[in-house]
Amino acid sequence: MSNGANSAKKFDFIAIGRACIDLNAAEYNRPMEETMTFVKYVGGSPANIAIGGARLGLKAGFIGKIADDQHGRFIEKYMSDAGIDTSQLVVDQEGHKTGLAFTEIKSPEECSILMYRDDVADLYLRTDEVDEEYIQQAGMLLVSGTALAQSPSREAVLKAVQLAKRNGVKIVFELDYRPYTWKNKEETAVYYSIVAEQADIVIGTRDEYDVMENSEGGSNDNTISYLFGHRPEIIVIKHGVEGSYAYTKSGEVFRAQAYKTKVLKTFGAGDSYASAFLYALITGKDIGTALKYGSASASIVVSKHSSSEAMPTVEEIEELISNQPVIHS
Amino acid sequence: MSNGANSAKKFDFIAIGRACIDLNAAEYNRPMEETMTFVKYVGGSPANIAIGGARLGLKAGFIGKIADDQHGRFIEKYMSDAGIDTSQLVVDQEGHKTGLAFTEIKSPEECSILMYRDDVADLYLRTDEVDEEYIQQAGMLLVSGTALAQSPSREAVLKAVQLAKRNGVKIVFELDYRPYTWKNKEETAVYYSIVAEQADIVIGTRDEYDVMENSEGGSNDNTISYLFGHRPEIIVIKHGVEGSYAYTKSGEVFRAQAYKTKVLKTFGAGDSYASAFLYALITGKDIGTALKYGSASASIVVSKHSSSEAMPTVEEIEELISNQPVIHS
Amino acid sequence: MSNGANSAKKFDFIAIGRACIDLNAAEYNRPMEETMTFVKYVGGSPANIAIGGARLGLKAGFIGKIADDQHGRFIEKYMSDAGIDTSQLVVDQEGHKTGLAFTEIKSPEECSILMYRDDVADLYLRTDEVDEEYIQQAGMLLVSGTALAQSPSREAVLKAVQLAKRNGVKIVFELDYRPYTWKNKEETAVYYSIVAEQADIVIGTRDEYDVMENSEGGSNDNTISYLFGHRPEIIVIKHGVEGSYAYTKSGEVFRAQAYKTKVLKTFGAGDSYASAFLYALITGKDIGTALKYGSASASIVVSKHSSSEAMPTVEEIEELISNQPVIHS
Amino acid sequence: MSNGANSAKKFDFIAIGRACIDLNAAEYNRPMEETMTFVKYVGGSPANIAIGGARLGLKAGFIGKIADDQHGRFIEKYMSDAGIDTSQLVVDQEGHKTGLAFTEIKSPEECSILMYRDDVADLYLRTDEVDEEYIQQAGMLLVSGTALAQSPSREAVLKAVQLAKRNGVKIVFELDYRPYTWKNKEETAVYYSIVAEQADIVIGTRDEYDVMENSEGGSNDNTISYLFGHRPEIIVIKHGVEGSYAYTKSGEVFRAQAYKTKVLKTFGAGDSYASAFLYALITGKDIGTALKYGSASASIVVSKHSSSEAMPTVEEIEELISNQPVIHS
Repeated sequence: MSNGANSAKKFDFIAIGRACIDLNAAEYNRPMEETMTFVKYVGGSPANIAIGGARLGLKAGFIGKIADDQHGRFIEKYMSDAGIDTSQLVVDQEGHKTGLAFTEIKSPEECSILMYRDDVADLYLRTDEVDEEYIQQAGMLLVSGTALAQSPSREAVLKAVQLAKRNGVKIVFELDYRPYTWKNKEETAVYYSIVAEQADIVIGTRDEYDVMENSEGGSNDNTISYLFGHRPEIIVIKHGVEGSYAYTKSGEVFRAQAYKTKVLKTFGAGDSYASAFLYALITGKDIGTALKYGSASASIVVSKHSSSEAMPTVEEIEELISNQPVIHS
Repeated sequence: MSNGANSAKKFDFIAIGRACIDLNAAEYNRPMEETMTFVKYVGGSPANIAIGGARLGLKAGFIGKIADDQHGRFIEKYMSDAGIDTSQLVVDQEGHKTGLAFTEIKSPEECSILMYRDDVADLYLRTDEVDEEYIQQAGMLLVSGTALAQSPSREAVLKAVQLAKRNGVKIVFELDYRPYTWKNKEETAVYYSIVAEQADIVIGTRDEYDVMENSEGGSNDNTISYLFGHRPEIIVIKHGVEGSYAYTKSGEVFRAQAYKTKVLKTFGAGDSYASAFLYALITGKDIGTALKYGSASASIVVSKHSSSEAMPTVEEIEELISNQPVIHS
Repeated sequence: MSNGANSAKKFDFIAIGRACIDLNAAEYNRPMEETMTFVKYVGGSPANIAIGGARLGLKAGFIGKIADDQHGRFIEKYMSDAGIDTSQLVVDQEGHKTGLAFTEIKSPEECSILMYRDDVADLYLRTDEVDEEYIQQAGMLLVSGTALAQSPSREAVLKAVQLAKRNGVKIVFELDYRPYTWKNKEETAVYYSIVAEQADIVIGTRDEYDVMENSEGGSNDNTISYLFGHRPEIIVIKHGVEGSYAYTKSGEVFRAQAYKTKVLKTFGAGDSYASAFLYALITGKDIGTALKYGSASASIVVSKHSSSEAMPTVEEIEELISNQPVIHS
Repeated sequence: MSNGANSAKKFDFIAIGRACIDLNAAEYNRPMEETMTFVKYVGGSPANIAIGGARLGLKAGFIGKIADDQHGRFIEKYMSDAGIDTSQLVVDQEGHKTGLAFTEIKSPEECSILMYRDDVADLYLRTDEVDEEYIQQAGMLLVSGTALAQSPSREAVLKAVQLAKRNGVKIVFELDYRPYTWKNKEETAVYYSIVAEQADIVIGTRDEYDVMENSEGGSNDNTISYLFGHRPEIIVIKHGVEGSYAYTKSGEVFRAQAYKTKVLKTFGAGDSYASAFLYALITGKDIGTALKYGSASASIVVSKHSSSEAMPTVEEIEELISNQPVIHS
């Protein structure tokens, strides 16, 4: 499998799923109840990954749906200014709102999030708003698991997966499990399995793979044995501060350790990891190096106030890989 | 009709309806799309009126429902700290969220509001959560029209109205019309009529009375002719900068003019008006003076950043009445 | 209060509410599980009352909504053939279905009913489909309590009540309580009270008045004391085989006993009672005689297979009153 | 691929999906509006196929959900009496109703159906009600396409498909497309593709394959080219009176012609076809013979009043194959 940058394609990758608003506490070291001021950022895992990828120089596109209001217009402008193609960012016409995430910054270990995710615009993306010609122009399609949580976004994503397969576009499945958008874990397991079996690359935390398998305390061996029986060629499993692993269908195993950093908050780590990992693969780096890029990018973002705005440049990542010690576990 | 303070009652008034969150722009003179920082306040018309009344020294209670989350806890604490009895502020157990109002402060004439009102906790107040013994303890029940917009809050409020009538508690109906919570204007007209016919005091803008009558360009004469055929004894009709009118069943008419002020934003005016008007009535002032209190309070709040936090004291109101010129129209 | 036939009006009465399908067991003396054949009739309390009134010679109109399908067309034709004006029988355009009631005829005491009432067309009547000019043409508006069970039918009926009051059309409120269409009893009590307080005539069983009062084991004395404090002038309270009572605001009390009959099934009794009682009032008979007409009509319908098709003629009612013994209790 | 009867398994096949009520016109040659009497039968494609299979001597099981009412109990008893294992026929506890199909018998070409399919019990089967141990005991799992139309039944069926694959149980996908249960055709195409790609045998009409492909006027060549690129080994495509085709992955093509018969109504043909086709495969007959069994069974059922009750015996099928001429087209 070659993951090199595909110069024949208009987009290195297209992400599909939610683009939302983060409202991050402007005051630190206090619970949200006592936080009086919030700063607005673009948020949502696939939007963050697209922004992170564009920051690193990748040609990125986005398929999603935004509210027809001030927050929706902010999102569109921010992503467009970041260099992402937003031609497939559909404006909702049925009065749905932008998803919100209020965050507190209480301590590095405690950062509760208050989500507004009921009937949000991104989950109303429809099958007829997913365009085969657009997907054909991409080297990769990045699918966010949360976009499978509800209809009609669920069917729009399943259609995008079918179109990607039919057109030889590689599918990257970021499990991105957020319990509050799902009815129950069995349902999550059903759809995660359907998409993971059809993906080329699967990325998630150990806990997220457990959700996909509808189990607890699952092992990486079982996970890769199951998924390599289907289409996947690379499986990335993240174990938090213990580092992350990449497995290939041909039997290779890679591990990257986490970098030491001054953690401000934990959210945004996964998205920055994914964008840097994909950047490295797309630009022809080996899988071991790609893992390091992911780890380094994550450690930069957790030290900063936002997820999207904090996405690092290639220089920042490479500087950190060169100079920063890893966490030995 | 005597509206003097009722020393035999535990509460001068109880408000029923929503208590929400306002997120007001911290940056001025720009559209919300470019506003990056928001400051959190308690909001929602009946909550603001209760807070305003308590600030003026009235004994206030509140019947409502709040989310079981950080925003809900902030509201409960703020209202309790303001001196309001929050024993009937039910905590929602079904995952509903707190209503939100993002505001921009673009110019005194343009302050768009972005509402999050879908499936919010306050609209899930149920009939079995309205307690007859509690209502008996009040001199007045202040009903917010928005609380009639959806079931089951609608039925909870209709029950509260029936209980107030049965127990000789005066009913004040603040029309408080917010189109985004209603299915259509005919439905609004149906419920506004049912409650207005049973209220003792009705307060609203001319436009809101038009909604109640399912008409456009209605006249005050027709409105008072209709409502005085039923229970109401005082009808207050507000005409913006042209001032406001109070009519009594016995045929008196009062008018108050608006006070000159430096307007920062327009929202919050109606709530501060209502709280000061009721304060004056309850403390035995005549209706003409009560109108002045309402006008003065409104002109103070529109010059400040919030609705709830900005509610004035008696001294501030009386100072303004003494010194501030009115707008002649 | 004069209830004589109003020759100046186009309609003696207009009924508002549901028109549905009854599927009555063709086989007797067995549970529905073993019933293999069902016969189709028009059903639904206000439709039955309109049909019963028309059979007795009254000029009847109907406001309701029917499905755009074979059952809806059957209902429209049957009612039209019965002499009822169906110009205000709106055909639903949103795919809602006709309500169904499957009945078994197991024994006179046991006749379970299986209802299909979810999202049925009649409950989707809208406020804009209730026409003031039509209501003006009626002497009476008969309101079925079940039509208050859900929005938007609820608001359409509340609007019709307001229009009837404004135009001097007498309001007859048939409580017609069917628990399966309501969320809970407190909600029923709220709406039953609102309409009963505004009605001129209220008809129901003792159990139904208990629902209106949100109580159990209520007394007729309390009921009439409450309702005569508002608009009603005649209150009819039915006690099953023990007969029925009519109370007037001026203090009269009438009682009618039930007639002996060979009961096939119990459903349909209340509807035939109401149509004959109203017929007698409208044609100028005294209230005591009107109660007898109601009782006689009910005893005829419970001896026959259907509710609508079995509605008696004036001759049948008067024949039975002359010859049939009553049940002494 | 061997499809012989699997003596090691408890069930020759298990069907998953709906079991409903048909109410067939007792009077012929008239539109439903004029039909006054209806006869009750068990209906629903997978229930009919299970009943048909049991009539032919197969060991059949069923996974589904029925209403907790008289119709639900009738279904359970009828299927149990037919010899089907109903241990996995879950009784709904949330008040959902049994699906209904009223049919007219106007002429062989015109037999309109009036469906009650909103919020019916069968579509509320949940993932946790699908049991892996039960599915393990089957030689085949027959999936009805309609069971994919709505959540949570959709996810329950997708889980059953995953369990069947994991346990080596052959999957038969009967497309069974009923437009009224689906939101739109694109959504149908998404789920039909997901299941068809994972099935071993796919059965449908040419029109149903067009729905799966989200196209019109599709060709059998394209269909088999697409599906044989995935798991399917046998594809049956029915062309009405022009007969039906079976294709195998190894390249064989079989055709069966329709038998002449006196058609009373057309519904039930597909279900009887599927049950007889599967019976023949399971008992080791070749594919060409299996097609004849399907055709013969269908021609028997269309000549009779019901779908389920009319399912033929082996003797009736073989008698017809021996003696009845086919329709040449």
